[in-house]
Amino acid sequence: MDHLYEKTVSSEKIYKGRIIDVSVEKVALPNGAEGMREIVRHPGAVAVIAKTKEGKYVFVRQFRKALNRTIVEIPAGKLEKNEIPADTAKRELYEETGYQCDELEHLISFYTSPGFADELIHIYLASELTLGDQHTDEDEFLDVLELTIEEAQQMVLTQEIYDAKTAYAVLYLQKMSDK
Amino acid sequence: MDHLYEKTVSSEKIYKGRIIDVSVEKVALPNGAEGMREIVRHPGAVAVIAKTKEGKYVFVRQFRKALNRTIVEIPAGKLEKNEIPADTAKRELYEETGYQCDELEHLISFYTSPGFADELIHIYLASELTLGDQHTDEDEFLDVLELTIEEAQQMVLTQEIYDAKTAYAVLYLQKMSDK
Repeated sequence: MDHLYEKTVSSEKIYKGRIIDVSVEKVALPNGAEGMREIVRHPGAVAVIAKTKEGKYVFVRQFRKALNRTIVEIPAGKLEKNEIPADTAKRELYEETGYQCDELEHLISFYTSPGFADELIHIYLASELTLGDQHTDEDEFLDVLELTIEEAQQMVLTQEIYDAKTAYAVLYLQKMSDK
Repeated sequence: MDHLYEKTVSSEKIYKGRIIDVSVEKVALPNGAEGMREIVRHPGAVAVIAKTKEGKYVFVRQFRKALNRTIVEIPAGKLEKNEIPADTAKRELYEETGYQCDELEHLISFYTSPGFADELIHIYLASELTLGDQHTDEDEFLDVLELTIEEAQQMVLTQEIYDAKTAYAVLYLQKMSDK
């Protein structure tokens, strides 16, 4: 048994939403005392950094209500039930940007915020792109933009790119291209 | 006016917790239709990658109830009210590891998951460390470990390091050391 393990004593469901569920768990701490953990459950998501035949990368500019501002991100979306992440990646890239990809490579996965959420994001690199039409969800509005990796890095510095998955993908690609 | 802006029509408070608050906002979408956004509000956090005089980096192994597993992270903690991030960084590093730092440099900040949460994490690099005693919160249990940057990178690959702030900090440091 892991000496840091926290056993669940009881769990209270607070909210069951469209994207997230929220619960509060009473746990037995390693010293026997009782603790309380607030937990957001999320189905998980994919994010796709897609390279065009011209060597640029495809980003979307999207309004994020949680931040009450528009930021630039790579295309992404939550996993649908029984959908494998690679299929979600292809679908979201196509819906948000109109691009279909012939090649898709898993780069890395990470938990966004393990202190309170179980959201796991899988990042893919898409290439060999063919452009069709955008087909966003009915509540999804976004601009598509294509950037060189240098432009994207600059936007990380100016914080127009400001989220974990996008900054991580840009840094990861840069690291690979330095090799 | 940003053409992607979503105006709040009404907001319902779902949960007011110890660390997070949850609300559901009805918004006016850019096409005039109504949409719904689930939002987790978080006070924001700091994370500290600390370099010892021997050139190793300080990590903590911590059980995360949201994942129901133990992962290795850099020391981190949420911002307390009226506390400036640099002070939170020094305090959390000291509480979790016993290390006090004479030098602290802000590396980068990022939103962990802007699709549903407003959590912003500020990453700091701490150096010129002096070791005292660990003083964790009463519901906080963790092991301290010191790793070379190469060992930390290996743990990113084996996914013992698996969260955004830690993977990002390790990758960022490696990028700086490549220069």
